[in-house]
Amino acid sequence: MPVRLDARDEGFEVAFRALLAAKREVAEDVDAVVRDIIADVAARGDRAVIDYTARFDGLALDPARLRVSEDEIDAALADSPREALAALEVARARIETYHRRQKPADERFTDEAGVTAGWRWTAIESVGLYVPGGTASYPSSVLMNAVPAQVAGVPRIVMAVPMPGGAVNPLVLAAARIAGVDEIYRVGGAQAVAALAHGTQTIAPVAKIVGPGNAFVAAAKRRVFGLVGIDMIAGPSEVLILADRNVNPEWVAADLLAQAEHDTAAQSILITDSAALADAVAAAVEGHLVTLPREKIARQSWEDYGAIVLVPSLGEAIGLVDRIAPEHLEIVADDAEALAGAVRNAGAIFLGQYTPEAVGDYVGGPNHVLPTARSARFASGLGVLDFLKRTSILHCTADALRAVGPAAIALGETEGLQAHARSVSIRLNL
Amino acid sequence: MPVRLDARDEGFEVAFRALLAAKREVAEDVDAVVRDIIADVAARGDRAVIDYTARFDGLALDPARLRVSEDEIDAALADSPREALAALEVARARIETYHRRQKPADERFTDEAGVTAGWRWTAIESVGLYVPGGTASYPSSVLMNAVPAQVAGVPRIVMAVPMPGGAVNPLVLAAARIAGVDEIYRVGGAQAVAALAHGTQTIAPVAKIVGPGNAFVAAAKRRVFGLVGIDMIAGPSEVLILADRNVNPEWVAADLLAQAEHDTAAQSILITDSAALADAVAAAVEGHLVTLPREKIARQSWEDYGAIVLVPSLGEAIGLVDRIAPEHLEIVADDAEALAGAVRNAGAIFLGQYTPEAVGDYVGGPNHVLPTARSARFASGLGVLDFLKRTSILHCTADALRAVGPAAIALGETEGLQAHARSVSIRLNL
Repeated sequence: MPVRLDARDEGFEVAFRALLAAKREVAEDVDAVVRDIIADVAARGDRAVIDYTARFDGLALDPARLRVSEDEIDAALADSPREALAALEVARARIETYHRRQKPADERFTDEAGVTAGWRWTAIESVGLYVPGGTASYPSSVLMNAVPAQVAGVPRIVMAVPMPGGAVNPLVLAAARIAGVDEIYRVGGAQAVAALAHGTQTIAPVAKIVGPGNAFVAAAKRRVFGLVGIDMIAGPSEVLILADRNVNPEWVAADLLAQAEHDTAAQSILITDSAALADAVAAAVEGHLVTLPREKIARQSWEDYGAIVLVPSLGEAIGLVDRIAPEHLEIVADDAEALAGAVRNAGAIFLGQYTPEAVGDYVGGPNHVLPTARSARFASGLGVLDFLKRTSILHCTADALRAVGPAAIALGETEGLQAHARSVSIRLNL
Repeated sequence: MPVRLDARDEGFEVAFRALLAAKREVAEDVDAVVRDIIADVAARGDRAVIDYTARFDGLALDPARLRVSEDEIDAALADSPREALAALEVARARIETYHRRQKPADERFTDEAGVTAGWRWTAIESVGLYVPGGTASYPSSVLMNAVPAQVAGVPRIVMAVPMPGGAVNPLVLAAARIAGVDEIYRVGGAQAVAALAHGTQTIAPVAKIVGPGNAFVAAAKRRVFGLVGIDMIAGPSEVLILADRNVNPEWVAADLLAQAEHDTAAQSILITDSAALADAVAAAVEGHLVTLPREKIARQSWEDYGAIVLVPSLGEAIGLVDRIAPEHLEIVADDAEALAGAVRNAGAIFLGQYTPEAVGDYVGGPNHVLPTARSARFASGLGVLDFLKRTSILHCTADALRAVGPAAIALGETEGLQAHARSVSIRLNL
């Protein structure tokens, strides 16, 4: 059974802390293995990638077959259900519209001292998009990663997707085509991350790697961070639903389970001011569960990590919301907008009864790659800014340097950096 | 002697690659030590922090003395030279003016389907600013890290600075006061990063840690990344100067040495289309060197990692600039602005003869915390965005869900996520 807490109970703080501290993922210590794989790929290139792919994916490749051919992508498109392709097109267009608004402006201004300062945004020159294989190989995630990169103007977008035994979800390749990605390698795991970061004879290195993956992928991204950029270390997903008494418990239950069905480590939490709603939702979850194809996963997630928290009022729950810092926050209450305005930490907020998280997962427009496992305290969802970088620009006239230079000289001398000071003073004949 | 290359020479590409690949830092493998320190601080809190501070900094503390008192900060201010304080005030004001322009706008729009989407920026609730001890303890860096956090609206800014043997540069504390930071702990190294990330009895945990440090600090930041946010893993610094024949070689030489004096691992590169300038700068460097207090450091950096590259024309050098992806790029040439416009990868660009990098290091306004060691290919300098996070917002009316819901249902079913599909269809009575 999921945890039931009441904020008015004596032991609430202790129990709530335990909920926050629950480790939903076994942190497998794969770092030593990953270190060796990366070193091997850096040293042997394609040969190492091919060896690991044979070993881990049971797939025999040669360098010419690392890259997925145009013909294969054409065939995947032909194999994909029309309705799903149409839905991916709808999603792509909506994601693009939303993300176009994220493009930041360049800036340049001249102050009263005559100093011109500003910045300029440029797209990262090459990005590698990691797509997991198997059941977590979601075509929607291909769009959510590739479209912002396209909107940013990244000239080279590369995809790596493992194909255990040679198999791949054709819709993943179709989504790549729809997103305009045509450089795809059938490689996964730490070896894919290593190949993207260090490059091989066949795979030119990229400047940044994004996308979710298993423990090996996560450890590899952490290791290559610095050599290349990375997006984030993705953890298990969570939803928090803040609901008042007036909502439909069947709908709330479906939303909780939409999270739970992802992964046994997913977490679904309901916070409400209504004990009646809490009971009704708990019952509705049971009703839904028995009819779900992924009942087993969803049930385990709900029973291990699910929680229902009763609060005196939803306003008083905001502090709890900020401590949970949920990846997804649904607010289904009369004053949803006001409550949302009071929240500091959440990856995405879904307002009102007609905004189930799933609509945002697919076609709302915002990105579904969001900060998990409490990282919404400090991180944002994926967006166009993740594929851009900012170069600051400074220009001084001789007069401007005369105005601001003396302070720079003073600080250089203070910090014992005499050449810093001299590089200014020599220009001012000081 | 620094490397001399000519882009027209046969072996240029090989030599240039070697220049790019030069490892300027010994990657000390301190990870195992750091892992143990972090685990110990997480488990024992203050006691562990105090033990490591005694061992590594030769400083005996008790929990009450971890935090620097207001009186000590007052005393540091009184001990600081007036001229330096005034220069720090100038710098603070100019940094603030520049960074205020980086504050991003919230967004909300409703599309033709009736979907309202957007995002909201909020400040990170708490940030830890690491300041190195010893000679790399720069008051200017305190401002460069703290001011953007202030501008972002971070409510709690904490500083950690090691005080080996109890000593600290009073201007570091003064800069903290000037920047409005008053929660300061005399702790450094991996133990400081661990304390900021995990919290101790005395030090409440923060949500993000920024600031440069030695190999232990860098390894600790890499390890706690995910539990908290981090800015970047800082490496050794570099400058690239792109200069035509009309510039003053003495000034260029001073700028090259301002970089070289930082660190023996710093790198200073001149690219020019004038062999005469190349010779004159090389000679001027020697002239400056013998009069610099930090001659030894600067000379070693220049001789080990310095480079002068001759190119047929500066326009043809842009490809080389992008491959180097310099932290600092000075362009001192007639068409500096046009050349700058063609560059993709640089942390900061300094335009024209009267904009030595040092003016930007201190008082230009832009941040001096910039992507080092070729990371300008994918990363930006520190800024206000590093202290904010974005929450996406979505709202559908019943009609809007009717319009976009079917595509979400199709994708949920396609991905085998039946509860996702149901959470939409149940609202549409489908």
